[in-house]
Amino acid sequence: MLYIIGLGLADERDISTKGLEIVKRAERVYLEAYTAVLLVEKEQLEAYYGRSVIIADREMVESQSDDILAGAHEKDVAFLVVGDPFSATTHTDLALRCRQHEPHIATRTLPNASILTAVGATGLSLYNYGQTVSMVFFTETWKPDSFYDRVAENASLGLHTLVLLDIKVKEPNLQALARGKIVYEPPRFMTVAQCASQMIEVEETRQQGITAKEKLAIGVARLGSEGEQIVAGTLEELTQFDLGKPLHSLVLVGTKMHEMEWEFAREFAVDKEKFDEIWKRDYVGKN
Amino acid sequence: MLYIIGLGLADERDISTKGLEIVKRAERVYLEAYTAVLLVEKEQLEAYYGRSVIIADREMVESQSDDILAGAHEKDVAFLVVGDPFSATTHTDLALRCRQHEPHIATRTLPNASILTAVGATGLSLYNYGQTVSMVFFTETWKPDSFYDRVAENASLGLHTLVLLDIKVKEPNLQALARGKIVYEPPRFMTVAQCASQMIEVEETRQQGITAKEKLAIGVARLGSEGEQIVAGTLEELTQFDLGKPLHSLVLVGTKMHEMEWEFAREFAVDKEKFDEIWKRDYVGKN
Repeated sequence: MLYIIGLGLADERDISTKGLEIVKRAERVYLEAYTAVLLVEKEQLEAYYGRSVIIADREMVESQSDDILAGAHEKDVAFLVVGDPFSATTHTDLALRCRQHEPHIATRTLPNASILTAVGATGLSLYNYGQTVSMVFFTETWKPDSFYDRVAENASLGLHTLVLLDIKVKEPNLQALARGKIVYEPPRFMTVAQCASQMIEVEETRQQGITAKEKLAIGVARLGSEGEQIVAGTLEELTQFDLGKPLHSLVLVGTKMHEMEWEFAREFAVDKEKFDEIWKRDYVGKN
Repeated sequence: MLYIIGLGLADERDISTKGLEIVKRAERVYLEAYTAVLLVEKEQLEAYYGRSVIIADREMVESQSDDILAGAHEKDVAFLVVGDPFSATTHTDLALRCRQHEPHIATRTLPNASILTAVGATGLSLYNYGQTVSMVFFTETWKPDSFYDRVAENASLGLHTLVLLDIKVKEPNLQALARGKIVYEPPRFMTVAQCASQMIEVEETRQQGITAKEKLAIGVARLGSEGEQIVAGTLEELTQFDLGKPLHSLVLVGTKMHEMEWEFAREFAVDKEKFDEIWKRDYVGKN
């Protein structure tokens, strides 16, 4: 059996007690470590589990999944995923391979907390979100802006948008690669401030007002951990706000935000007066 | 401190190890038991925790929250919620009361699995969902159909819709009430078949094709448990399908369903040939 086990969001103790039992008795334990990361190191997981953990990078999961699945038709293999297992399509892909495997490998998934629901901590109702979008690191020559259309679709219905921010783990240094050496860059995690800047940058070319400077947004950092932090304000304000260590996410507020959501969210505002003023001017009754 | 702790979806062992530690040492332990239920009884939780658990019904949470919060400014109180704490606005409300309480009560939330993400088990990408809707039990005289507009909005963008199904727990028997007696009805949980029937019933009056008989949908039952069950088909097919014990939910498929989602979901089809035929005819390239 392949157990795909969600680890939740913060540290080694967010695994369910059921998940922990499986990890302790599994033949091998893998940790998917490229679509999301916990706030603690692998060694801390290993100490808590009393097991060694094999890091599964993108290369291993996408090209060497046979190694992961070896023997799983008769023994238990645990594949750990930060957050909830089904929040990344990679895992759907892995489950599909188990189905097609000869001999067939049974799979079981243990759900856990995901950023998609933990974001409820902002006070914005989870029932008022539209589709989720991703924001990648812009470069000088590559500034993909398809997120803008998705956000505009959500906004047309007054819905909030959760924006997941890019992480770069184990990226090869291109200069070293050109010299035939593989050297990995240090990991990079997009901040709320960077995301807000990129949104405003795209607004300058798209000009539909979807991610304009005065749009209200909420930035979140390290949700589900003791050090979680939430800040609300205009996109422009958020470009100046340092939310500290990763992981960060951003929510763009939709006009459907009702009074109870507003009451909860304004407590996190950089500038409450401004937040209320914009809410009354641009949001209330605009849906 | 008030700890609002998510229990996940299935049984007593879906709590995180961190959550379990808090439950074991808290002054009092409450279980919110009216917006969702676990698949096991309270006694099984108590045996596992080694603690007695106080059932918090709607009346207690909404009108007697002072009892729940008593002493929480200096001692730890655990408030357990099935699924993820923020999936119900009640809990946002409770957190607001803690903020306003004199003396102030600090709160901490421990996220956990929610139906909103566990539904990823269907193979439909969590990034392609629009707003979530609820379906209540229809009566002869009360058939609220506002869900239809929300589904139509999602469908206009090609998005999937998660439909959460009504549960009735601790509802007084109205006839007994008229005689001055309080007698509670047995709990009722809406099935996927009932939901599909109600959707088709509303289609008959609304006639926009949003929840027509041949729309593709996926029914899920007991997600996250060993006995989880998933079935895909037309709404009409689902009216005839018995998914067994609660809890059930339904997903109405959007036209954005891409090939990998289809490949995964069709494995659950009542009638694969029909599923594929309708997918090709009404979904592919229609967004």
